[in-house]
Amino acid sequence: MALVLNDSGGLNFVRAGDVKSFESKTGLSDGSGEEMYQLIAELYPICRSITGQGIRETFGRIQQHIPLTITEVPSGTQVFDWMVPLEWNIRDAYVADRRGIRIIDFKQSNLHVVSYSTPISARMSLRELKEHLFTLPDHPEWIPYRTSYYKESWGFCLSHRQYLELLDEDYDVVIDSSLEKGHLTYGEYYLPGETADEVLISCHACHPSLCNDNLSGIAVATFLAKSLQARSRRYSYRFLFLPVTIGAITWLALNQRHVSNIKHGFVLTGVGDEGGFTYKKTRDGAADIDAAFAHVLRHSGELFEVTEFIPYGYDERQYGSPGFNLPVGCFMRRANGGYPEYHTSADNLDFVKPTSLSRSLEVVRSVVEVLEANRRYVNTSPFCEPQLGKRGLYRAIGGNVTGRSAEMAFLWVLNLSDGSHTLLQIAERSGLPFSTIKLAADELEGQGLLRRSG
Amino acid sequence: MALVLNDSGGLNFVRAGDVKSFESKTGLSDGSGEEMYQLIAELYPICRSITGQGIRETFGRIQQHIPLTITEVPSGTQVFDWMVPLEWNIRDAYVADRRGIRIIDFKQSNLHVVSYSTPISARMSLRELKEHLFTLPDHPEWIPYRTSYYKESWGFCLSHRQYLELLDEDYDVVIDSSLEKGHLTYGEYYLPGETADEVLISCHACHPSLCNDNLSGIAVATFLAKSLQARSRRYSYRFLFLPVTIGAITWLALNQRHVSNIKHGFVLTGVGDEGGFTYKKTRDGAADIDAAFAHVLRHSGELFEVTEFIPYGYDERQYGSPGFNLPVGCFMRRANGGYPEYHTSADNLDFVKPTSLSRSLEVVRSVVEVLEANRRYVNTSPFCEPQLGKRGLYRAIGGNVTGRSAEMAFLWVLNLSDGSHTLLQIAERSGLPFSTIKLAADELEGQGLLRRSG
Amino acid sequence: MALVLNDSGGLNFVRAGDVKSFESKTGLSDGSGEEMYQLIAELYPICRSITGQGIRETFGRIQQHIPLTITEVPSGTQVFDWMVPLEWNIRDAYVADRRGIRIIDFKQSNLHVVSYSTPISARMSLRELKEHLFTLPDHPEWIPYRTSYYKESWGFCLSHRQYLELLDEDYDVVIDSSLEKGHLTYGEYYLPGETADEVLISCHACHPSLCNDNLSGIAVATFLAKSLQARSRRYSYRFLFLPVTIGAITWLALNQRHVSNIKHGFVLTGVGDEGGFTYKKTRDGAADIDAAFAHVLRHSGELFEVTEFIPYGYDERQYGSPGFNLPVGCFMRRANGGYPEYHTSADNLDFVKPTSLSRSLEVVRSVVEVLEANRRYVNTSPFCEPQLGKRGLYRAIGGNVTGRSAEMAFLWVLNLSDGSHTLLQIAERSGLPFSTIKLAADELEGQGLLRRSG
Repeated sequence: MALVLNDSGGLNFVRAGDVKSFESKTGLSDGSGEEMYQLIAELYPICRSITGQGIRETFGRIQQHIPLTITEVPSGTQVFDWMVPLEWNIRDAYVADRRGIRIIDFKQSNLHVVSYSTPISARMSLRELKEHLFTLPDHPEWIPYRTSYYKESWGFCLSHRQYLELLDEDYDVVIDSSLEKGHLTYGEYYLPGETADEVLISCHACHPSLCNDNLSGIAVATFLAKSLQARSRRYSYRFLFLPVTIGAITWLALNQRHVSNIKHGFVLTGVGDEGGFTYKKTRDGAADIDAAFAHVLRHSGELFEVTEFIPYGYDERQYGSPGFNLPVGCFMRRANGGYPEYHTSADNLDFVKPTSLSRSLEVVRSVVEVLEANRRYVNTSPFCEPQLGKRGLYRAIGGNVTGRSAEMAFLWVLNLSDGSHTLLQIAERSGLPFSTIKLAADELEGQGLLRRSG
Repeated sequence: MALVLNDSGGLNFVRAGDVKSFESKTGLSDGSGEEMYQLIAELYPICRSITGQGIRETFGRIQQHIPLTITEVPSGTQVFDWMVPLEWNIRDAYVADRRGIRIIDFKQSNLHVVSYSTPISARMSLRELKEHLFTLPDHPEWIPYRTSYYKESWGFCLSHRQYLELLDEDYDVVIDSSLEKGHLTYGEYYLPGETADEVLISCHACHPSLCNDNLSGIAVATFLAKSLQARSRRYSYRFLFLPVTIGAITWLALNQRHVSNIKHGFVLTGVGDEGGFTYKKTRDGAADIDAAFAHVLRHSGELFEVTEFIPYGYDERQYGSPGFNLPVGCFMRRANGGYPEYHTSADNLDFVKPTSLSRSLEVVRSVVEVLEANRRYVNTSPFCEPQLGKRGLYRAIGGNVTGRSAEMAFLWVLNLSDGSHTLLQIAERSGLPFSTIKLAADELEGQGLLRRSG
Repeated sequence: MALVLNDSGGLNFVRAGDVKSFESKTGLSDGSGEEMYQLIAELYPICRSITGQGIRETFGRIQQHIPLTITEVPSGTQVFDWMVPLEWNIRDAYVADRRGIRIIDFKQSNLHVVSYSTPISARMSLRELKEHLFTLPDHPEWIPYRTSYYKESWGFCLSHRQYLELLDEDYDVVIDSSLEKGHLTYGEYYLPGETADEVLISCHACHPSLCNDNLSGIAVATFLAKSLQARSRRYSYRFLFLPVTIGAITWLALNQRHVSNIKHGFVLTGVGDEGGFTYKKTRDGAADIDAAFAHVLRHSGELFEVTEFIPYGYDERQYGSPGFNLPVGCFMRRANGGYPEYHTSADNLDFVKPTSLSRSLEVVRSVVEVLEANRRYVNTSPFCEPQLGKRGLYRAIGGNVTGRSAEMAFLWVLNLSDGSHTLLQIAERSGLPFSTIKLAADELEGQGLLRRSG
């Protein structure tokens, strides 16, 4: 029991209600951060794109943690206004100088090649080559990340420092890639609960060697899924690992009839850096998931920001398109584009931290706790307050002013349990953490003073 | 008539609209503060508790001012989830040292005995005694106030200074009290008005020698009742003088069928200290009484705070339990627990001031004025403005920019009297005091430009 | 087309969306300010009042710009609670000293005579005269403007400096005016549009030599009307040039059946000074015209204030009387009474500026653009985002972070075009200027991705 008598005979909850309590209950903090970091380190070298072997290999490694179902959708399949593209694979790519030395080498970093580059094997002048080179003059040591999914093209990315050192001579340019009919691949893990009502957790898995932008979301989603396997679940949970945009569009097109089950959801991405938390609200901005994230973050003791929906960012823009309008927000640390390392080689294994991953996982676990426990109750003794003291719930000696939180939680739950307020609304109105309110409700329900409503 | 021509031929109300105007109109300020203070001084020595002779004697003295109806409810009566407790009375109590000297003496201060202490007569060591002693280490000169209504127990309260000086010897401990079947006593004064719709004013009367916490509310309620006797009343008024919690619960249990008459209400307590005003809103937070207090306080020229409802404090938590959800707020100066003297011997006759009592009375009288006069009207000349000038209501010479308030009051009342806005809403939207809006409405009604709606 | 490719292959709108864009499109800024100023200069010497030859002559000069319809309403006509007054005309007026020298002379400034002064021809002492003299002690060089429309009276206005220099002797006092049965005159210009739904623009034309207060509104209204003649119009536009108060009341009384056509409207006055903009909201405060002005001003790059409705000011108080409750706001620069020159001889040709007039005209033209183009659309491809790239609307190369506005406009319009959001609401929620949103909507409609709703 999470209730103890305080010094004055009143009641206190044991450290209930702050995010840290989940740590101690689940023991996650003693290793999950490192485990998630290890998964990221393992996936880091793989050259992922929106299709191809890289994303398949990634899903294979995730399957060592959770039993992912893999779906392969043929190139050319019409998905709403889009078409599943050709599958892209790459074996090697380089630019070699006159001496045959590879001065830009895909094998050193897969960021060197613009994703979806068409094959090429040619000798060309520096002038010709330069039209296909991309750099970041403001960050001369970093390699940018670029793609050309929907326009056939090829290119190399390199550091601006190296670019400035290129000699005016001819170069051998080779990209040993293929762009052919094949498949788009996505991974899915469905954890059934007591009801068919679903919580959707979606993350993208299509970026090559970028740690925060894609791998951190994959890692936290995977470990959230693992932790949910063991517990009883009121909701069913669906985890999607997708190529960004076209993956979400494809999944929505193939599952259009089932999306009405989705009651809550969030996109998970960029949760490994050391920045404060960002939660971006759903399109309507008033969903339960919005209230749950805002509540948990407010009580997390960490810096955070809750921002309005905009139709830009990650796949929340597809889930939140007007035809679906699903209650799906987006949970990040620093928002996409909000840090200079975004979409560069500096988003590497140094940029993400085990502690950051661990705290991000705690937040989403706390959000899940809120969703699972959030109900309406009816006070069975609604006329005046019930006498808590005779039930051993209330301090027997008046005049005590410490240990007020537990007592206030009982009083708030009783006062607002009129069938119209949820526990989360009670927590918000009272200023108390959801977990405190939940413990009080459980105790009152056990005493017969509360029953579940509707 | 409260209207005069200003220098430029426009209209001005004579200092209308601020709380001070009630002073001059009623002459209250010239003596009511002192009279209320005298009542407090008279009631101060009585040892009140939630039952017993002390509260009976208190009601007897109030009856010298207003014809209180006394109700006696037998111990053991079931009132919702509670039971009326045994009646507690006390004749004497002391702790005497080896020389027989009373070092703690109930006759010196009734705060020395924990209220509802069971009888005892024993000799015991200091060590045994200490388990029954209560002090305030942070305020070593003050005696705390403690109760043990619902758990049989006994104890003494004393200053921490005295506690530290106790010698390690045996003591004679005597509490000559009784805890027996008897009655719970409450007082009620019902002033009928034109309609059965009621305004409820409730205050607690169960604390021993504490001035601000209970006696100030009793005094202001009593003098508010006296002042209402003389005036015409649209509403009926019900004044309740109750033991806190169990008294309100008992009254509600015995009057459950009649509470639907209660249209407005407030708990009155802690209104004699020198702090700013606090109005705590009703459970719904959007009742007329909330708007009335907020308006009057905003125009009072004094420091004030309007706070949200919480299910803690005084009997507003019973009136605002979900089964009743009555529109009952709470009017105080410094909120309960918000000052160190609260529930100590320092809440004495020095702590309350005649001026504070008088200003508190003015506020509640102004609130009553708002409730009484707050109506919806319909502009009988709704197309364009009526020509106020030809009725002697409007300045005849244009170009004048002084004396704007009276003119603005006419224009606001005419513009918003569409049957949906109350005078209080018009006052709030215009920024003008309710009393100015009321005078303008009276004048316009007299001219036939306004009629009462619905 | 207002869309161009930016450096990175993305799209940018050419300076779209700020008020300046209207300048460049319409070429107004190259001369309209001066033309409006010339009209003011031409009207400045005329002695206007609420009736009489002055206002008729004013309308005659406006007719050289737009084909105003003139209505003459006989004195004594009942208009709601008012009666059309006698017609006032004045030929001459002066105060002459003993030597016959005109020391106060109507011919030097028509402000010298209180408007609607009754005729007089008498010799009187300084003491008698002083009861009819009005000055501004705080601004000793300025002549005040005063009226006495509804109380028969006479008077002179003069500078306080001159007042102090008056010798204690007898004076010849002459006002050669007439107050006789005649007419109230107003001017009206109706520009039909595709629908009978109307936009009302109302300005007063009854002040004598005051530039900002009445002539600036006349000038901007006239040039707004001229500019609307050439363009296609979804709405019909009605321009009213009226004597203040009695003119609006008369027009409303004579047109009561037709006012239901008025969907949007604003009073236009005081738009020539160098102060920031003021928009005063309609009575309900939530009309489309309120949102349109707030939006245009927010994107104007100039200082502005949006204020709540009060039943005082100009004729918005008649349009907003409870019987009509029309959605008519008021657009000004510094609000009436908000500058010392108001209603004095200092509101002269130096006080208004061509640039100020020009910028005011740009704002009201932008507001008209918003009203004309503000519609709801339905996204014809509502499930997920349509693929903008394949339509040449979207940047083909990912990774670009510049040129975001055009892309965001497309995404916002698509996301919120669910039949419930207007373009103005989309502009507000996106933070983008209406004109950018409008261009995006046009483009998307052209591509078949959007259709007009309802």
